[in-house]
Amino acid sequence: MGRTLPTQTEVAARAGVSAATVSKVLNGHKDVAAATRARVYQAIESMGYRSPSARAHAAQLPQVLAFADGIATAYTATLLDGVISAGQSLGVDIVVRFGARPAAGDPATSRTLPLGCIGIVAITYGMRSVDGLEAPANLPVVVIDPSTTQPEHWMTIASTNWAGAKAATEHLIDLGHRRIGWLGGPTESVASSDRLHGYRAALQSAGLPLDEEIEVNGDFSVDFGRTAARSLLSREPRPSALVAANDEIAIGAIEAARSMGLGIPDDVSVVGYDGIPQASWSTPRLTTVQQPLTDMGRMAVRMIVDSARGVPPESRNIQLVTRLLQQESTSAPRVTAGA
Amino acid sequence: MGRTLPTQTEVAARAGVSAATVSKVLNGHKDVAAATRARVYQAIESMGYRSPSARAHAAQLPQVLAFADGIATAYTATLLDGVISAGQSLGVDIVVRFGARPAAGDPATSRTLPLGCIGIVAITYGMRSVDGLEAPANLPVVVIDPSTTQPEHWMTIASTNWAGAKAATEHLIDLGHRRIGWLGGPTESVASSDRLHGYRAALQSAGLPLDEEIEVNGDFSVDFGRTAARSLLSREPRPSALVAANDEIAIGAIEAARSMGLGIPDDVSVVGYDGIPQASWSTPRLTTVQQPLTDMGRMAVRMIVDSARGVPPESRNIQLVTRLLQQESTSAPRVTAGA
Repeated sequence: MGRTLPTQTEVAARAGVSAATVSKVLNGHKDVAAATRARVYQAIESMGYRSPSARAHAAQLPQVLAFADGIATAYTATLLDGVISAGQSLGVDIVVRFGARPAAGDPATSRTLPLGCIGIVAITYGMRSVDGLEAPANLPVVVIDPSTTQPEHWMTIASTNWAGAKAATEHLIDLGHRRIGWLGGPTESVASSDRLHGYRAALQSAGLPLDEEIEVNGDFSVDFGRTAARSLLSREPRPSALVAANDEIAIGAIEAARSMGLGIPDDVSVVGYDGIPQASWSTPRLTTVQQPLTDMGRMAVRMIVDSARGVPPESRNIQLVTRLLQQESTSAPRVTAGA
Repeated sequence: MGRTLPTQTEVAARAGVSAATVSKVLNGHKDVAAATRARVYQAIESMGYRSPSARAHAAQLPQVLAFADGIATAYTATLLDGVISAGQSLGVDIVVRFGARPAAGDPATSRTLPLGCIGIVAITYGMRSVDGLEAPANLPVVVIDPSTTQPEHWMTIASTNWAGAKAATEHLIDLGHRRIGWLGGPTESVASSDRLHGYRAALQSAGLPLDEEIEVNGDFSVDFGRTAARSLLSREPRPSALVAANDEIAIGAIEAARSMGLGIPDDVSVVGYDGIPQASWSTPRLTTVQQPLTDMGRMAVRMIVDSARGVPPESRNIQLVTRLLQQESTSAPRVTAGA
């Protein structure tokens, strides 16, 4: 897509008007007929003309490349919201690319770095494509919700997954639940696996048995939550509560319980994880572990801008604390099962 | 944020190692102690060093500036998903800025155009900030879901708001509903106002009376839906169905009905608008008017890239058709009220 810089006179010729008319249109004068204006704009656009003032405007800001795995999920959207807002207040432009969808036709976007690029933020699965980019080793990279496999010089931001899921499970134990099921994300997700260990730690600390029969891992979707909860809630004795590794899974679980004629929270208590806006729209509102997603996104950009300014970050590996948001999907069990 | 280009030797001096060690680290050799590697990376980042290969990578792609009003809503997230995916397959980078939040501290991001910028996509409210940018008149601008006030040379993409809401209302009339309320978005939103007229047109075509008592406009939020529906459902005779101007309003309305002891769809049918993923998570699943949001985002980028290539767009003002997605939140009224 080559860029040419035609002159105002060439634009006038193409539009079949005088150069003065082109100038009038560009300066927003009202005394040009609509049809003429339209013809001038069409010529301008088709020729890629840019006025001197337009060229003067083009003084590029530093850019940060953000990789995400699409923004269909509220989780990623909230993180990206933090990244973009931070860019805005720090005077940095954010270029967003979807890592998990390498372009088949034109691989340029999977290789080329923006000219003014001062660093890369990779959100979860987007990480894989930072490798694809063959990012120069000296460009600061911050991974949000990292796996165990990223290069050690990358900076990382996570929330306290283990402690968050432990707090969620303890909340259920405090309410009197003794048989608590687990609905996890992908087994290769470090976040999900850390949360699973938090769930187990809470059970073990309370002297409750671990039962792999009521631990299921799958993916972070409503569909998985629905299917897995239906299976778990069919077991005898039925779990009186479920801990889900994210809010989508929990929302699916609530739906499954309802479709089985079970009340939430009367028959089954459900806790989610993330604190996406939908957790507060659901009926009943979901008790969930809130991650500081917007803050995590903001902090990632801040770390890159600091690096570019020569300020070493306070820490290269940060965990932000989570907070249990008690809403309506948890209560004491109707009948204390087991124990 | 000035960028310097120090040499490898200067980096080595800063890190207190030899130039050969710096080179080893940059090339990923394993035989450098972790502490040394960390020191080298810190020097590299703090000095803003970029290797020759890094500079070679920096061959900027054309960029499209996308303005949105945050991405907290599934509506905006889905549109942006289309914009970014299209950029990816067309070899264009998408810079995302939040229009409605002009940066107070550093106004650079509200004025400066990226160097390789070939056009602007403005999503709904983001429009206002395109004015703030003083975008050169010759840069192609595409507005998604336009208002009536944008400059006439901007291109526009909308969905068939009027026809979509008319179809939703006709669906309820076909089911036997005679008293149907309206829960609208902001009155200044052209999309919401077009939908309101579609709702009215369906009622009028069916010979049903318009009743401003059960037409409420507010904003596109769950909270507004909750409050407004509670008020509408308290009127006598109670509407047996509600048409909402978006899915969030509809989700709030369902919650309000439930909290009043009314069943969905047995006592009240509810139709939403947009077709965001949450419409299919809710219990019951929301009957809604699906907008082709991803397609709208894709088409916007395509129109800009075509302009930059000198291909005039087929049309400068496009409306994409909507589709009624019948799910579980609508049914025949229990008692046919009125008529």
